[in-house]
Amino acid sequence: MSDRTDRVRGPLAPSTGVQRPLGIDDVEIEGGPFGRWQRINREAGIPLGLEQMEKSGALPNLRLAAGESEGSFQGFRFQDSDLYKQLEAVAWEHGRLPDDGYRAFVAETAALLARAQRPDGYLNSHYQMVKPDKIWTELEYSHEMYCAGHLIQAAVAAARAGLGDELPAVARRFADLLVQRFLVDGDDAIDGHAEVETALVELYRLTGEGSYLELARKLIDNRGRGLIAETGLGPLYAQDHLPVREADTAVGHAVRQLYLEAGVVDVAVETGDETLLACSVRRWEDLVATKTAITGGHGSRHDGEAFGERYELPPDRAYNESCAAIASIHWNWRLLLATGHGRYADLIERTLYNAFAASTSADGVRFFYVNPLQRRADLFEDAYLGRRREWFACACCPPNIMRLVASLGHYVATTDDDGLSVHQYVPGTIRAGGITLAVETDYPWDGRIRFTVRDTPGGEWTLKLRVPAWSASGELTPNADGYAEIRRDWRAGDTFTLDLDMTPRLVLPHRRIDALRGCAAIERGPLVYCFEQIDQDGDLEDLALTPDSGLRAVERDLPGVGRTVLIEADAVRLPPAPPDGLPYGTAPPASLPAPTTAVAVPYYQWDNRDGGVMRVWTPLA
Amino acid sequence: MSDRTDRVRGPLAPSTGVQRPLGIDDVEIEGGPFGRWQRINREAGIPLGLEQMEKSGALPNLRLAAGESEGSFQGFRFQDSDLYKQLEAVAWEHGRLPDDGYRAFVAETAALLARAQRPDGYLNSHYQMVKPDKIWTELEYSHEMYCAGHLIQAAVAAARAGLGDELPAVARRFADLLVQRFLVDGDDAIDGHAEVETALVELYRLTGEGSYLELARKLIDNRGRGLIAETGLGPLYAQDHLPVREADTAVGHAVRQLYLEAGVVDVAVETGDETLLACSVRRWEDLVATKTAITGGHGSRHDGEAFGERYELPPDRAYNESCAAIASIHWNWRLLLATGHGRYADLIERTLYNAFAASTSADGVRFFYVNPLQRRADLFEDAYLGRRREWFACACCPPNIMRLVASLGHYVATTDDDGLSVHQYVPGTIRAGGITLAVETDYPWDGRIRFTVRDTPGGEWTLKLRVPAWSASGELTPNADGYAEIRRDWRAGDTFTLDLDMTPRLVLPHRRIDALRGCAAIERGPLVYCFEQIDQDGDLEDLALTPDSGLRAVERDLPGVGRTVLIEADAVRLPPAPPDGLPYGTAPPASLPAPTTAVAVPYYQWDNRDGGVMRVWTPLA
Repeated sequence: MSDRTDRVRGPLAPSTGVQRPLGIDDVEIEGGPFGRWQRINREAGIPLGLEQMEKSGALPNLRLAAGESEGSFQGFRFQDSDLYKQLEAVAWEHGRLPDDGYRAFVAETAALLARAQRPDGYLNSHYQMVKPDKIWTELEYSHEMYCAGHLIQAAVAAARAGLGDELPAVARRFADLLVQRFLVDGDDAIDGHAEVETALVELYRLTGEGSYLELARKLIDNRGRGLIAETGLGPLYAQDHLPVREADTAVGHAVRQLYLEAGVVDVAVETGDETLLACSVRRWEDLVATKTAITGGHGSRHDGEAFGERYELPPDRAYNESCAAIASIHWNWRLLLATGHGRYADLIERTLYNAFAASTSADGVRFFYVNPLQRRADLFEDAYLGRRREWFACACCPPNIMRLVASLGHYVATTDDDGLSVHQYVPGTIRAGGITLAVETDYPWDGRIRFTVRDTPGGEWTLKLRVPAWSASGELTPNADGYAEIRRDWRAGDTFTLDLDMTPRLVLPHRRIDALRGCAAIERGPLVYCFEQIDQDGDLEDLALTPDSGLRAVERDLPGVGRTVLIEADAVRLPPAPPDGLPYGTAPPASLPAPTTAVAVPYYQWDNRDGGVMRVWTPLA
Repeated sequence: MSDRTDRVRGPLAPSTGVQRPLGIDDVEIEGGPFGRWQRINREAGIPLGLEQMEKSGALPNLRLAAGESEGSFQGFRFQDSDLYKQLEAVAWEHGRLPDDGYRAFVAETAALLARAQRPDGYLNSHYQMVKPDKIWTELEYSHEMYCAGHLIQAAVAAARAGLGDELPAVARRFADLLVQRFLVDGDDAIDGHAEVETALVELYRLTGEGSYLELARKLIDNRGRGLIAETGLGPLYAQDHLPVREADTAVGHAVRQLYLEAGVVDVAVETGDETLLACSVRRWEDLVATKTAITGGHGSRHDGEAFGERYELPPDRAYNESCAAIASIHWNWRLLLATGHGRYADLIERTLYNAFAASTSADGVRFFYVNPLQRRADLFEDAYLGRRREWFACACCPPNIMRLVASLGHYVATTDDDGLSVHQYVPGTIRAGGITLAVETDYPWDGRIRFTVRDTPGGEWTLKLRVPAWSASGELTPNADGYAEIRRDWRAGDTFTLDLDMTPRLVLPHRRIDALRGCAAIERGPLVYCFEQIDQDGDLEDLALTPDSGLRAVERDLPGVGRTVLIEADAVRLPPAPPDGLPYGTAPPASLPAPTTAVAVPYYQWDNRDGGVMRVWTPLA
């Protein structure tokens, strides 16, 4: 293994690729939304998560498996994975800001896992305690490899964050068992839920053990060959309908497809397999053009937590699972490093500031599992009235959110032989290859970003700055990859200022998206906006925008929400439309719209005040 | 019990009400779509259903329960109910056109049921064979009373169709057990799936046994009090969130709510409970105005087979279960008899010709469970590619369809003290109270309906003819209930001709239906139309209508479909919109529409040729 991959203290360390990632300690985030999210994640989110590791049964289940307590297994068969994601979150948080409590939690939990682990390396508290006779026999829904994958990712994080060898040792014992059974012994079974593939590649990157990469490649090439037993949900659900290299579109359970794609890119990069990379890019292009919400969210159906058809993008019933947003960021980050194309960083930004950020309340202790773009007035059919909740019976999302927030620094900038690329604009400091770059900005509230070179190794190098596709800023012409290149013999103290165009935008949907026809949305910078009832004078359902609605940005500090920039939109008020008989008729409804003002708030800040009506997409009068 | 209820050879025989129903043998249907459906139901549907009673396990399960065979239980816990609906279909078909084979099937099956029935009257092959220790302990999802309800309805049909006492005897033994446990002994439990309530009232009407009515009333008043254990689907799913008298809107699983409403009206009518009737009417008005598809279909969500929120009416993901259409017809028929208001007959007509009729293929041997208003091009996420199927693992719909088709004659006309009312226009003969009325029509292809009085008891009486809300026919002014009244001293040979306005109509959705914004649909007479790809020159997804699109009716005989009237619509062709990046942008798409003609087919006749794209709602350019 190369020095290059060994030294990266971050989630991803590919051995090749156009861009090289930095460690989470190479980027200090000092303020802005990312800084706020990291602060509340540390102060409120992770403590809540650690508390839930006891309450939800995750730790008690492992004590059962270790023979150290009595009782019965609690939760789902993939309950262990919550703990693994929580461990990963703690590890990255320790890597960012070391803490003895975190170190102790990881050490104690690793020791417990080692005691619970069977001598042969197998570790899954559900199967060990509830179904020991079913181990490896119901992989279509057992999540055994899925849980192993999250264990491996936690172990990689612990290793890279300097938290000792015990967790990596547990993970390697399990990984070695997987290699023995599914590679050496030739069992062709694969897990119904992709995840272990990308984890195995990262363990290969950490350890240099080629059999982990080889197994990951085998698992990917085995998918789509009918090896996953039917569960009643059909072969699409687990992406087993076609071989990975042949599938042209993302299908089925969104999180499964997206974790799979991360593994596909990882294997392609490490094995130099261009056709494997190309099939993932092909699906990315189709997914982005036909199955992606304006927030970057994926998954249009509650039923099967599935993508849905091309252009099936309902705002009200959009699923947009928080875990799908995280998985999408993982995949896009891999594609960005592999290709250097800014379109992937554009989508990461869109997803981070919208689909992902909306998953967490302003105070950091309530979460959305599902992230729709519309909330109706009555919501009779939702037992939780569409509000964020502290925790979930199936709690895949909260610890997943925490591990991404803790590692956000990893996704800000990269290096290549020619210099430094900045993908996400956050105030703070970036260090890479002798370069120290200070970033001052009030982004995304303001579009000005000021870079100051604090240290430089000397000689010419290029500062590459992503110009988001939405910015019409004309001063800098981006290259074909979407980056402005500033090549100089930089000296300490040199500065450069990037101005992005923060003019609010009225955005229209592609005409093939039936569910959004006749509507518009508002964006400003990377933020998608929404209308909440609480900010309007009258009934939100009677408001409409016009194609030439004036839009004005107004800075505010909203109770419950915090700092924000609202958009005041020229709008019209339609006469109320009371129900009266069947809602279909031959006469167009009488419409005498009166001018008014509608007030929009960033989508990610919604649902922090009350449970009222919300719309991202608003009718055009 | 009154003579009045005893003599009706049809599914419903209320003892009071504004209108009195006729028996299925009082109305002979001779042609038209109803006649065609009855013919293929007899020739193809019922034979298929009888075959499936063996294949699907329904009959073998009962032989197991009777101790007459070995093997294991097949299918769902409500598998018996398929057989009961099949028995009911056969009984009504026998009532319509007697057949010794039908008589033998009912007799043999009744004998088998009697042998399978426990001495205490309990009968459920699943619980008897698989979970004998769980009888009555998991009513939240056991369907034990639901199955009892279908058994009772089959028994009522057998009794009224002259098929002997054995099936009614089995049903009464079970009903008496229900009365003992849940009324006399005071157990307050209720079934998670409403159905037994309406069945018990009909058994009371057949037998005069008041305890059946009393139990039905208790079950209805017990709902909404938290007596149904939580299943993970929430209290809305089974309408247990609010007492029936307090609920203002239909919620949860659509078929459950609609069967419940049938029982609510039945109990209200038999007990003279005006407030109970009023709460059902209140929910009807809300449901029709906010949660009903243009086809009359109900249920907007696959998830939970639920209604969804008010105005949540997606065309693509509409569930519109075939059983919900049937249940809606049951409920509306009860409301029509109770109140005499034609709006219920209007909705029955809309539902029969659209949501219901679409459930069956032109050849009568393939069925839809789900009836959406749009089928996309790829349908990757549907394992069956959105096509009709011969049968289903959960086969609630096909035998339900068969029992309604066999009894269609029951829903055509009624009497009151003043004469005869005709609600549905079908060619044939109607006999009631000494009146014989011949009906000649080519409806719904043509709007002219000619009535000839063949016999009359003498003296003045009123012929009431429903004027559908969609008919602008100005010659006849309907009364407040929506009926044209022709009062005469009718003589044999007298004729009357009704002309309904069959001009094709461009229909627009209520502005609150987000999923249909900017679209129009086409109707002609009672028929909703759709566009299928096979009838278009170019890509259907590039077609748009205009607010003043000319519409022309054209009669055709289409291979695979049969006789029909197509609508040729003036339309425009939009330039193709290829996918290219994220499908959201600030510039309106360039649109240079070219004039063209789009061809629409009646919705109920769709999917009889290929599996191509279909749309009921089409964009307006």
